[in-house]
Amino acid sequence: MNKRMIVHMTGQIIRLESILLLLPLIVAFIYGESNCYLAYILTSGISFAVGSLTVMYSNPESKVIYAPEGFVITALSWVSLSLIGALPFVISGDIPSYTDAVFETVSGFTTTGASILTNVEALSHASLFWRSFTHFIGGMGVLVLMIAILPSSSARSIHILKAEVPGPTMGKLVPKLRSTAALLYIIYIALTLLQIIFLLFGGMPLYDSIIHAFGTAGTGGFGIKSDSIGGYSPYLQWVITIFMLIFGVNFNVYYLILIRKFRSIIHSQELWTYIGIVITSVVLVTVNIYSKFHDFGEALRHAAFQVSSIITTTGYATTDFDLWPDFSKNILFILMFIGGCAGSTAGGLKVSRIVLLFKQVKRSFNSMLHPRSVKAIRMDEKTVESTTLQNVNIYFALYMICLALIILLLGLENFSFETNFSAAVACFNNVGPGFSSVGPAYSYAGYSIGGKWLLSLAMLLGRLEIYPIILATLVFFSQRKYKA
Amino acid sequence: MNKRMIVHMTGQIIRLESILLLLPLIVAFIYGESNCYLAYILTSGISFAVGSLTVMYSNPESKVIYAPEGFVITALSWVSLSLIGALPFVISGDIPSYTDAVFETVSGFTTTGASILTNVEALSHASLFWRSFTHFIGGMGVLVLMIAILPSSSARSIHILKAEVPGPTMGKLVPKLRSTAALLYIIYIALTLLQIIFLLFGGMPLYDSIIHAFGTAGTGGFGIKSDSIGGYSPYLQWVITIFMLIFGVNFNVYYLILIRKFRSIIHSQELWTYIGIVITSVVLVTVNIYSKFHDFGEALRHAAFQVSSIITTTGYATTDFDLWPDFSKNILFILMFIGGCAGSTAGGLKVSRIVLLFKQVKRSFNSMLHPRSVKAIRMDEKTVESTTLQNVNIYFALYMICLALIILLLGLENFSFETNFSAAVACFNNVGPGFSSVGPAYSYAGYSIGGKWLLSLAMLLGRLEIYPIILATLVFFSQRKYKA
Repeated sequence: MNKRMIVHMTGQIIRLESILLLLPLIVAFIYGESNCYLAYILTSGISFAVGSLTVMYSNPESKVIYAPEGFVITALSWVSLSLIGALPFVISGDIPSYTDAVFETVSGFTTTGASILTNVEALSHASLFWRSFTHFIGGMGVLVLMIAILPSSSARSIHILKAEVPGPTMGKLVPKLRSTAALLYIIYIALTLLQIIFLLFGGMPLYDSIIHAFGTAGTGGFGIKSDSIGGYSPYLQWVITIFMLIFGVNFNVYYLILIRKFRSIIHSQELWTYIGIVITSVVLVTVNIYSKFHDFGEALRHAAFQVSSIITTTGYATTDFDLWPDFSKNILFILMFIGGCAGSTAGGLKVSRIVLLFKQVKRSFNSMLHPRSVKAIRMDEKTVESTTLQNVNIYFALYMICLALIILLLGLENFSFETNFSAAVACFNNVGPGFSSVGPAYSYAGYSIGGKWLLSLAMLLGRLEIYPIILATLVFFSQRKYKA
Repeated sequence: MNKRMIVHMTGQIIRLESILLLLPLIVAFIYGESNCYLAYILTSGISFAVGSLTVMYSNPESKVIYAPEGFVITALSWVSLSLIGALPFVISGDIPSYTDAVFETVSGFTTTGASILTNVEALSHASLFWRSFTHFIGGMGVLVLMIAILPSSSARSIHILKAEVPGPTMGKLVPKLRSTAALLYIIYIALTLLQIIFLLFGGMPLYDSIIHAFGTAGTGGFGIKSDSIGGYSPYLQWVITIFMLIFGVNFNVYYLILIRKFRSIIHSQELWTYIGIVITSVVLVTVNIYSKFHDFGEALRHAAFQVSSIITTTGYATTDFDLWPDFSKNILFILMFIGGCAGSTAGGLKVSRIVLLFKQVKRSFNSMLHPRSVKAIRMDEKTVESTTLQNVNIYFALYMICLALIILLLGLENFSFETNFSAAVACFNNVGPGFSSVGPAYSYAGYSIGGKWLLSLAMLLGRLEIYPIILATLVFFSQRKYKA
């Protein structure tokens, strides 16, 4: 284990955060929010000092990184980012409790969008900006950003990318890793700018547009209004619906559009399954909630918005879907598990894993009826390797085991079964709002300190797809054992 | 597909039911319940006539059965048994609605123990006996019984046994299949008699003892009192606790005891995991519910009873566990999924599958930390074949897909999330009572006709481990397609 390199890379990430913290500082200056000046200057300074010292004194003899180092770097970076990123909320007085601030920051970076705020509109512009900016950074990934901008990254950094980018497989778009990372960010920023333009066109103020574009791009869900997106015009709601769906698609698809490989897009089973699930869900929910609205257009708009918001694990709301009939709530509940496409900014199990699980189930039926004709599983015109299938299956088991443990421990909280259950599912899948007391009309403020840390852990496990966090913990304890 | 042989075997099962129906008739005579005479004589007659005619006119040219035939025979037999077995309830007037009667009969045969009765004590002795006797038949399996008693069964009948006996693998105890089936039933009957003796010894009346032994042996959970086992003495509750645990163990273990192969028992990882889960759960629940009882012995007794009842998917209750703290309810909820050991009469995923899922997860951590040393997975001192692992993984995915669909459709019912969710889980895992409005103090009477048929299907899917029902449906529709 190349420990020095792990510390070195984590130091670089912490130093990078000091630069990112300058953006909310600018917002503080624009709005003259003096209570925020110190908060963001101080945190940026701490971050710069800690990061620089760590980078200077880590002195890695070798820059080689293997898969285990990739996992540990990813876990350590995300935890450090969150613990430091929470400080400005506390120092500015916007979120006085450090536990609450960490919950909110983890929720931001992991693009969950679960909030402990009971009145979001009381926060400073600077803090609301920082809160939503963490969505934007966490969506594509801070390590992807670092690889894109730092010239020093070695070819081995693929292991970091693999650990941070969600999905069962991770392919480079172009041979050079740094160019792949840069290309991902260019597409990401371009789409975000496009959304800002569409929102401005609909009369949304610039500040609101940037915030909501961050929340949509990262499929996060933090907003600036108590009623989320409910107060904006139908046009703006439709724009956000469409962009949520866009950011739930594998970014490879946009690269394929750029290089005009349309044939590959037509054969992307994950993309068409994703679109199919969205359309089916929207139709079912629209029919089911029609009686609540008595207006087809309105029912369709809310259904499309909520289905898109939940399957992409964004978590924005145009209406209190907790009041919808159980059948529609169950559809949303199942969508929380499915999530968006691999290689998107969305959470959940990912559509490609669901497709591979279904294909294996289908094959098992075939092999029972016709035991002699066992066929290989194909996806996107390619045979899927058996190790990929195995990894998908084991990830699914691990995912369910983690979820069961989170639900079990959350039972110690004084909430209803539906609240705790949906809180665990919504945080673990990086959705944000759940049902009942953690529904879109409420917040996570009522959870105990222990419950908030547990849910913060659940969000990190979900965003990083479990392995980095657990492997880092295993390495940490085995290293201690060796020393003792 | 050997269609004639499928029909032939199903006919034999239907004819067998006519004999089984004579037992409740005897009970009706003993208690002089004249409203039941006609019900059981008529149903037995119908069953004999339909079965005999089917057997006579099916005329199979070949007796060869392969795996697909095994699945279809199992599915058809269980559905026929339930549809016919429900008739006496309707004819006697004990359960006037045919939907309700089918629900109750399916719940009986699948050893679920979910009931639509709001006042169980109002039923005739004969019908209560038949209701509990279906647990006993369904526990070890009616096809296993047929293979044990009919001399005509071919060596190919292993495919029927494989389809009916739950668990990831099915091994013959002795080389001859018929002897294996007979041996399983001998152990089963001997243990049931032993329990009856222990219950009689504690002062339970003979009729009650037989009923509760049936309910325990099949891990079913039907009783004759509104408060389930709550009204019986602590001694009787402990006897049932211990026998529930006994019937949740793989019956191979008892065969190994008979032939004195104690070494194999010591190395049975499933057995020790099962015991470990039970002890851990009992300790956690006892500590958690202690404040409700203020008496360590009482808390321990209720905790041990409920943990044993739920993990073995029996469903008996000594107290209303729906009123327990959420943490304890969550433990019971997770136990519903785990279930008993493979090759027992219990439902759920089965402990051996859970063990194999955990072993694969553990291996995945190891292979990520040490990519060059990938080890084979061993269980009970043997290397587990990769196809077995694959089947376990795919079964787990299929199980979750089915559960999600059942929960989704149950959302159309007018109950709370907790009620519907736990109803689906409790029926699919053959537990019986769930939480909230389907908790131990309530019944399934409130569900709509559609909901009751859906839950009946869920129980059959759970008991037969999904494949038989779905494959039979696929075969049915593909056969029709060929004819058209």
